Amino acid sequence: MADKAIQDYYPDEFAHCYGCGPLNEAGMKIKSYWDGEEAVCHFTPKPCHSGGVPGFAYGGLIASLIDCHGAATASAAKLREKGYSLGEKPLPRFVAASIKVDYLKPTPLGTTLEVRARVKEIKDRKVTVSVTLSAAGEICAKGEELFIQLQQWSVQTGYPKPVE
Amino acid sequence: MADKAIQDYYPDEFAHCYGCGPLNEAGMKIKSYWDGEEAVCHFTPKPCHSGGVPGFAYGGLIASLIDCHGAATASAAKLREKGYSLGEKPLPRFVAASIKVDYLKPTPLGTTLEVRARVKEIKDRKVTVSVTLSAAGEICAKGEELFIQLQQWSVQTGYPKPVE
Repeated sequence: MADKAIQDYYPDEFAHCYGCGPLNEAGMKIKSYWDGEEAVCHFTPKPCHSGGVPGFAYGGLIASLIDCHGAATASAAKLREKGYSLGEKPLPRFVAASIKVDYLKPTPLGTTLEVRARVKEIKDRKVTVSVTLSAAGEICAKGEELFIQLQQWSVQTGYPKPVE
Repeated sequence: MADKAIQDYYPDEFAHCYGCGPLNEAGMKIKSYWDGEEAVCHFTPKPCHSGGVPGFAYGGLIASLIDCHGAATASAAKLREKGYSLGEKPLPRFVAASIKVDYLKPTPLGTTLEVRARVKEIKDRKVTVSVTLSAAGEICAKGEELFIQLQQWSVQTGYPKPVE
């Protein structure tokens, strides 16, 4: 697996996400890597990341992992579609337009979670991604997501404008 | 509005959620209250809760708020359906089976977010909830969620068993 994660190629101005931004010092800094046709992310939650019951993860953490890992996968897939490897060209940055998470079973803490993403479709600047989140080999949650590529930074709004 | 939030009535064994558990010292401790037929939650993100771009919230935070506030709404609605007010009977605890979040526009930081939930259906131990998340009066995200009431704590698994 590569030394540098997909997120490590995010342009600095888009690298501040609490979930996945290398420049967010307080954040979770998740890391995603190509693994063949899928992208994989490993994350070990802290005990404080519990759901209502100690020892199991809260739903928001699971949604965060699925969201951020899916966005990284969309970015890397878009670059790959254009025929480039990571680092060869600036990485396009995607944000979620919609995510659906099905919580299939309780996700335990105290173990490393594996998040796997697979691109279902790339259509212009829209990328749909399917994600699974597993603990000890068992799928605990599934995600279906639609991401949209950001086109440009808007000085006026301070926010990158989504592509029309 | 009531002094005590819905979450303040969670039984201690179910009060450890990072997003909404009163007993999770490191957590966000969101608070939900009835406001007529809706339940409302106000939350002010920290600067570190940014998405890729500083000044706007990351998607996982938005999903967390929608998840936790929806779960509280489901709990309180189930109690109300039985004819009881908060505090009159132990509050049933719900967990998400599925959430869908549509991100309609960037959610700014630096302001208090308002999350509003409305129960669409209560069917036995399943409750469906619709949620909006707004900043400065503008809806930035919408959620549709299915929650399932937990029935009992399982000593064997350390996790409350979802109801069959």
